Amino acid sequence: MLPFDVTILGSSSATPSPERFTTSQVVSQNERLFLIDCGEGTQIQLQKYGKKIGRINHIFISHLHGDHIFGLPGLISSMSMNGKKGEVHIYSHSDLQVILSTMMKYMNDLNLKIIFHPLNFRRNAVVYEDSKIKVESFPLKHRIPCCGFIFREQPQDLHLRKEKVMELNIPFLDRIRIKKGADLVLSDGSVIPNSDLTLPAEKPRSFAYCTDTVMLEKIIPVIEGADLLYHEATFSDAVSELAVKTYHSTAKQAAQIALKANVGKLIIGHFSSRYKDVNVLVDEAREIFPNTYAVNDGDHFEIRKDNQSVSC
Amino acid sequence: MLPFDVTILGSSSATPSPERFTTSQVVSQNERLFLIDCGEGTQIQLQKYGKKIGRINHIFISHLHGDHIFGLPGLISSMSMNGKKGEVHIYSHSDLQVILSTMMKYMNDLNLKIIFHPLNFRRNAVVYEDSKIKVESFPLKHRIPCCGFIFREQPQDLHLRKEKVMELNIPFLDRIRIKKGADLVLSDGSVIPNSDLTLPAEKPRSFAYCTDTVMLEKIIPVIEGADLLYHEATFSDAVSELAVKTYHSTAKQAAQIALKANVGKLIIGHFSSRYKDVNVLVDEAREIFPNTYAVNDGDHFEIRKDNQSVSC
Repeated sequence: MLPFDVTILGSSSATPSPERFTTSQVVSQNERLFLIDCGEGTQIQLQKYGKKIGRINHIFISHLHGDHIFGLPGLISSMSMNGKKGEVHIYSHSDLQVILSTMMKYMNDLNLKIIFHPLNFRRNAVVYEDSKIKVESFPLKHRIPCCGFIFREQPQDLHLRKEKVMELNIPFLDRIRIKKGADLVLSDGSVIPNSDLTLPAEKPRSFAYCTDTVMLEKIIPVIEGADLLYHEATFSDAVSELAVKTYHSTAKQAAQIALKANVGKLIIGHFSSRYKDVNVLVDEAREIFPNTYAVNDGDHFEIRKDNQSVSC
Repeated sequence: MLPFDVTILGSSSATPSPERFTTSQVVSQNERLFLIDCGEGTQIQLQKYGKKIGRINHIFISHLHGDHIFGLPGLISSMSMNGKKGEVHIYSHSDLQVILSTMMKYMNDLNLKIIFHPLNFRRNAVVYEDSKIKVESFPLKHRIPCCGFIFREQPQDLHLRKEKVMELNIPFLDRIRIKKGADLVLSDGSVIPNSDLTLPAEKPRSFAYCTDTVMLEKIIPVIEGADLLYHEATFSDAVSELAVKTYHSTAKQAAQIALKANVGKLIIGHFSSRYKDVNVLVDEAREIFPNTYAVNDGDHFEIRKDNQSVSC
């Protein structure tokens, strides 16, 4: 099973500090990196936590507030100066192209080509898909258009029952077909159903990313059963009126979403700088959803499938 | 004598690393901060090294390459979110206004007003002056228009000779005039020349900032006698052809400028990422100008006037 993990590059809301940079995360599937949001200093954090910027070909931007995009000009510029060539795909609100194009006029000539893909802020959509992974966006509710993302592994092959392969001496090409779900047709025309020949595949793993947003119950069917959910928890319930006013969530609300969506593990972040100690937030969330963790910059969450649990 | 010092916020050229952010420095005179250049993460470095962003009212930008400006949107945004009001003055190429205006459309409404002052890239000019400090710009030679800056304390008051004040019982208002250079006129009309009443003022301190540029002899009269000179030393003499090609300087060239300009101390920076150990650069410079230091992020240089020396 390929490694599938998430590294936190920034966990502060609005303004950074030396301890908490602004929002960015990187999803790694095997050796490929998918960047989500790009607050100021993201390229520095990537280096600090051993992630090669040349391996990023896809960047997903939730919304155009500065604390989620101010690291993009520097990242792209450094990618190019480091000799990266080819295409980098950015999935975002279409206005990002205007912002970046203005800045890029003043950069050295880029070696690479940026391809912009506008997000749909009205309905769920598959924004990226290949043989290994699928990324869907879904609308959130913030002060400006904003999307969440869910990264899902593509369905895995079924497992062949070894004793059947031996017993029936199944040819190699048939084995491939059976792993994809086909029945086996013998030379006498008789059919052995797939269910006799295989064991179930591992359930595809998934990671859902939800920031910035008010608590939004309509996302529950989309993120239902995700192994790992990152949900913003900018404020505590004690100042829930601030969350309402700024279109953010409280730790309690993040936990309510995690509980209703029956996720494996909840990680919270995007903390307001008012919380020097975020224990108040994680305690509040754990009352509702015990398997909650408050992220720090540099945290690394590996999603495994042992007993459906997620370890970090 | 008011404190007058320089703090290095970033010392890498082109691309940052966790150890060396891209270019930015802050000059502090008493409690006031003057920012020079603003590479990505400058606001984080300011916090890390205990410099309050709310105290910055003047920002000097040498040129519009990304490693000198990518921290501006985040810095301005954070100033505003932290409640800073009033005016912030930016001295730069006029195109910076276009770049920042595009990004600022996507920021929350700013509480503060940004006032842009275009630099003159053809001749030396006083860009800022008040009763305590004067900042001059002077053209450098880089791939795009670029200026250096020199920060000079305004001339200090002369020192009254205490024995003369006692002997002649000089009235308070006359003392103020004498400290500014006036002679003393006695009630019988006789005149005591200023030189009999005073001792010389301290020589005003100065800090010159020269990056990015080829070695440029014409700046020598401008920076002549500066107490502290920051000069870029992107490359070593061994790859001087790279310096020529990219319009940068070698450590040797920085030292030659320091020697000819008879400065107090030379600090070098803007190092190419090829130098994991910058001793090769500082050794090369010291062969020509022994009082050379290779800067690190967070270094703090206090300019004192004891024996014309600069301590750090």
